[in-house]
Amino acid sequence: MSVKVFLNEDEIPRQWYNLAPDLPSPLQPPLSPADGSVVPPEGWAKIFPMNLVEQEYSKERWIDIPDEVLQMLYRWRPSPLKRAVYLEKALDTPAKIYYKDEGVSPPGSHKPNTAVTQAWYNKQFGTKVLTTETGAGQWGSALSFACSLLGLECKVFMVRISFEQKPFRKIMMQTWGANCVASPSTETNSGRSFMEKYPDTPGSLGMAISEAIEAAVADESGQTKYSIGSCLNHVLLHQTIIGLEAKKQLEKIGIKKPDIVIGCAGGGSNFAGLAFPFVYDKINGADIEIIPVEPASCPTMTRGMFAYDFGDTACTTPLAPMHTLGHSFVPPPIHAGGLRYHGMAPLVSQSIVEGLLTPRNVHQLECYASAIQFARTEGIITAPETSHAIAAVIQEARKAKEEGKEKVILFNMSGHGLMDLNGYLQYFEGKLQDYAHPQEEIDRAEAELADYPKPSMDKTGKW
Amino acid sequence: MSVKVFLNEDEIPRQWYNLAPDLPSPLQPPLSPADGSVVPPEGWAKIFPMNLVEQEYSKERWIDIPDEVLQMLYRWRPSPLKRAVYLEKALDTPAKIYYKDEGVSPPGSHKPNTAVTQAWYNKQFGTKVLTTETGAGQWGSALSFACSLLGLECKVFMVRISFEQKPFRKIMMQTWGANCVASPSTETNSGRSFMEKYPDTPGSLGMAISEAIEAAVADESGQTKYSIGSCLNHVLLHQTIIGLEAKKQLEKIGIKKPDIVIGCAGGGSNFAGLAFPFVYDKINGADIEIIPVEPASCPTMTRGMFAYDFGDTACTTPLAPMHTLGHSFVPPPIHAGGLRYHGMAPLVSQSIVEGLLTPRNVHQLECYASAIQFARTEGIITAPETSHAIAAVIQEARKAKEEGKEKVILFNMSGHGLMDLNGYLQYFEGKLQDYAHPQEEIDRAEAELADYPKPSMDKTGKW
Repeated sequence: MSVKVFLNEDEIPRQWYNLAPDLPSPLQPPLSPADGSVVPPEGWAKIFPMNLVEQEYSKERWIDIPDEVLQMLYRWRPSPLKRAVYLEKALDTPAKIYYKDEGVSPPGSHKPNTAVTQAWYNKQFGTKVLTTETGAGQWGSALSFACSLLGLECKVFMVRISFEQKPFRKIMMQTWGANCVASPSTETNSGRSFMEKYPDTPGSLGMAISEAIEAAVADESGQTKYSIGSCLNHVLLHQTIIGLEAKKQLEKIGIKKPDIVIGCAGGGSNFAGLAFPFVYDKINGADIEIIPVEPASCPTMTRGMFAYDFGDTACTTPLAPMHTLGHSFVPPPIHAGGLRYHGMAPLVSQSIVEGLLTPRNVHQLECYASAIQFARTEGIITAPETSHAIAAVIQEARKAKEEGKEKVILFNMSGHGLMDLNGYLQYFEGKLQDYAHPQEEIDRAEAELADYPKPSMDKTGKW
Repeated sequence: MSVKVFLNEDEIPRQWYNLAPDLPSPLQPPLSPADGSVVPPEGWAKIFPMNLVEQEYSKERWIDIPDEVLQMLYRWRPSPLKRAVYLEKALDTPAKIYYKDEGVSPPGSHKPNTAVTQAWYNKQFGTKVLTTETGAGQWGSALSFACSLLGLECKVFMVRISFEQKPFRKIMMQTWGANCVASPSTETNSGRSFMEKYPDTPGSLGMAISEAIEAAVADESGQTKYSIGSCLNHVLLHQTIIGLEAKKQLEKIGIKKPDIVIGCAGGGSNFAGLAFPFVYDKINGADIEIIPVEPASCPTMTRGMFAYDFGDTACTTPLAPMHTLGHSFVPPPIHAGGLRYHGMAPLVSQSIVEGLLTPRNVHQLECYASAIQFARTEGIITAPETSHAIAAVIQEARKAKEEGKEKVILFNMSGHGLMDLNGYLQYFEGKLQDYAHPQEEIDRAEAELADYPKPSMDKTGKW
């Protein structure tokens, strides 16, 4: 029937793919904001377990997936590869559109791929408690799920306005036994100081990150660590199982390579998870167009700078080499909360600089219109983040029709939208709008980052 | 790894199983409330297409699944058979617990199995519009999804109080292009008359059924039909793909038969879907305990009568032979809305009378406690309906431990609970309660049904 392709148990990938050693130029390192020196692995020891830090710095192309991690992933993986036959028909396109359905995980997105993995490595290392931040709750719920499977405690700092306005993911976290508090909270020094300084603040991801890191570092026993849902190399590594499965699934139905690979990108993890195994093919000569898609209102890749910047608003992280709109940029209130981030994963950013990716941005209203067309043809209601990928897929399918080419388009259906239905309602009621990214914002970011160290694309590998 | 079993494409069941011809006594027929005569197939012609009515009356054991229906089912089927290894460990039981995960369908439950099938048969028959009723929205959203795949119009009458209090499934229906209105509505005679009589009514499933049927019958072109989500023979038939898949999946891992089969039962469709293929084995000598589970507050099977009664509160349907608490019984406001029904599918009811099933009831608080244990071990947050099955599974797993027996328990994970998280929150906040079913209610039902025709269990097949 070929509308869906499974993998048998013995076909499941047993290694993750690490893009770092295959990048044409060496991956730029994180730098200390204090003196611009390279942050060594030990520099992360207080917040991450060293087995994950080792992956963060690894130059190995293939990294074994531990058997116990595979056992957990196997509860919902391999995710099905589906062909969007109804959407193709509606678009009357010669393109063949395939997608990985990551919505089949219990929390409903790709996030658990790295959540269970990080929780497992932490448990091996002796960690008892994981802390993290969450915006709308997608990542917080995935980590809560992972910790419940492994018997770890989980502490989630959730941006206050989401905590109050979006109670459902909070209930999910509670059902999985996690302790979720509104951030800023009274539980950390930074939280108390944010509350004193801005008593009526709705909170922000930047504040929540500061609290989660502080809560981890404050435990002098070393048994509390921090966990992050995107951006860093080891997180993207864990997601590559998506693309590795997809390659095997395409092979099973006789497709040697896709012509176009598409994913939405906020921090970069779902995009990289699908795309990096195909970036490897592209580096080795395959003709594939690889498109990360972002909101036009938060155009990190398409209008941001490739520069050293902080990962958080409060400037507590090391400096990362990435596409950025400046750490003080506050994205407009679009519904795709997971794409409202000023930066981008260094591995994705450097791949853009290398010319391996062709990023694109799309406005919110086009995304919702595309998601509704997808729901009414394929039957799946997607997350607002995923709708960005779908908008680009529909653009490419229309282009294939104009060109009369039977292209194979592959995209990542990164999550379902059943917890995000209010955005659809507001769209139907005509209450949503598009937001421009004005030139002043770009000027402001350039000024903000003017005195920071600059990444070197020196191919000698010397920093 | 055997924590999950898939089926290959060529192993998917291609026929549904019809229990009717295998029941020891002939299935009791529906009767006309006017004169007690048997309702012939033509009696349903105004509300259902004749190809589905034919299935309703069929005496064939195996009925072919049309290829185009299989293609649609194949988008999310076969559903995985998973082993609850984490739950087993937490319970320290020698029992092996397996479950079918029906939550992987786009609307999140087993309901689409019959929704896409009914929509397809209707389309073949020339139907352009399907009407239905829905309480909390599980069935209405499944039919909306099915109609969107097949290009049919869908009109859903949603019980007013749910329409107002539970907006999310309404948004799902809207996203799939359905027209969902609060019932009672001003669109039908019965709706207008309900509103005149009870201006402040919160609505009821009984009223919504009356409106949906009236809206179908009122279209004199015959192109509008009514669709039902449970209870009737053809609906249960379409769900048997669940149990047929489960049998093949158990065989694949070397399990000849389960010792215990469990499903929750409101109208009976998810329970029958899993159980009937095993009822067939039991009729043919297999030693299997088969347990439908219902709320203690709505104990249709365990404390109701086997009698002829109306399917709806407004007394507009034919009389059905079933376990019932009387059509005017109003179940207490438990969160498992899909189990708040006064009756039970005739095929399930008659199987109980034949001694093939051993029904059980469970109180709400035990169900939530069980669902939370399941979420914190297996990682899946289940629907409140499904929690009834899980409560019985945990009871049986504990019993297996006491007896020291390595039993195989199979149950139906009929749907995820991501749209029903408020019930969990109320449980955590201590706001939920159990409800007794008082003797006066039983006396009232007996009086209500005293003058109705009685089912005959005469094994000659003569009525």
